[in-house]
Amino acid sequence: MQLTKHTDFAFRTLIYLSMMQEELTTIQKITDSFGISKTHAMKIVNTLANKGWVQSIRGRNGGIKLGCDPREIKLDEVVILMENTLDPVNCDQPPCLIAGACVLKSELLTAQQAYLDHLATLSLADLANKRTQQRINNIPIAQEPMS
Amino acid sequence: MQLTKHTDFAFRTLIYLSMMQEELTTIQKITDSFGISKTHAMKIVNTLANKGWVQSIRGRNGGIKLGCDPREIKLDEVVILMENTLDPVNCDQPPCLIAGACVLKSELLTAQQAYLDHLATLSLADLANKRTQQRINNIPIAQEPMS
Repeated sequence: MQLTKHTDFAFRTLIYLSMMQEELTTIQKITDSFGISKTHAMKIVNTLANKGWVQSIRGRNGGIKLGCDPREIKLDEVVILMENTLDPVNCDQPPCLIAGACVLKSELLTAQQAYLDHLATLSLADLANKRTQQRINNIPIAQEPMS
Repeated sequence: MQLTKHTDFAFRTLIYLSMMQEELTTIQKITDSFGISKTHAMKIVNTLANKGWVQSIRGRNGGIKLGCDPREIKLDEVVILMENTLDPVNCDQPPCLIAGACVLKSELLTAQQAYLDHLATLSLADLANKRTQQRINNIPIAQEPMS
C-alpha cells in the first residue's frame, strides 16, 4: 500500500515549489535536486499545472512556481490526483469468483476513506517548516537522475 | 496505494478456507478456483501457515484448512503480514534531500494508522456471509491460472 513514485515525486515537487514561494524555478533544478528523471518530472509538473497547482511562465526569464496558495492544496487531493487507482484491490485481475458477494472491498474502501480523511485535514502549507526551508536552501545540485 | 496481489490473494485464500470450515481442501483447488498460479498460492499458504492461520495435514487424505477461529484473524494483521512494506513513501529511493526535515512521511503514517485501525475492528469472520458461502459452493473449476 505504498504510494506510487508518481505521487511521491509530486509531493516532493510541491513542497519544493511552496518553499520557493514567488521565486521562479525550473524543472531542471527540481530533477537535479531530487534525482528524478526529466521526463518523469515533466509529466508530474504537467499534471499539477492542469490542476492549477503549478504555474508555468514562458520566455527567456520564465520558469515554474506554485499556482495557488499552499493552504489550498489539501494532501488527500494530491493522493487522489496522482495515484493510478484508488481501488484497494482489483477483484477482476484475476477474476475473483466471490466478487459481488464479498464485503472485503467495501471495508477496505472505508479504511481508505479514513486514510484520506486524515490527509484532508492537512494542506501543503502544513508540510512547510523552517527545517525544510533550510534544507531547500542548501540543496546541492549533484545527483544522478533516476526515473 | 492498492494492496499488493500477495495480500489480495491471501485474503481470497483465507475467505475460501473460512467458508470451508472444518472441511479439508487443497492448494490445487484454491488455484483452480481463484486463477492464482500454484507457486504463488504455495508461498501465500506457507506464510499463513507459519502464522498459524492455516493448518496443513499431510498424507493421502491430507489437505489444508483454517488453523484457528476466523474471529481471531484481524484484517489489519493480514495486511501487516502480507504487504512488502508499510513505508508509505521511500524517501531514500531516490534520496530526498529534505528527508529528516519533512513531515510528510509522519503524516502519511498517521493516515495509514487510521486505515489499519478500521481494519482492526474486523475479523475474517466478518467477511463471511451467506452470499459468499453460496458463491464458494458454486465455484466452477475452469480458470486460467495467473501469477
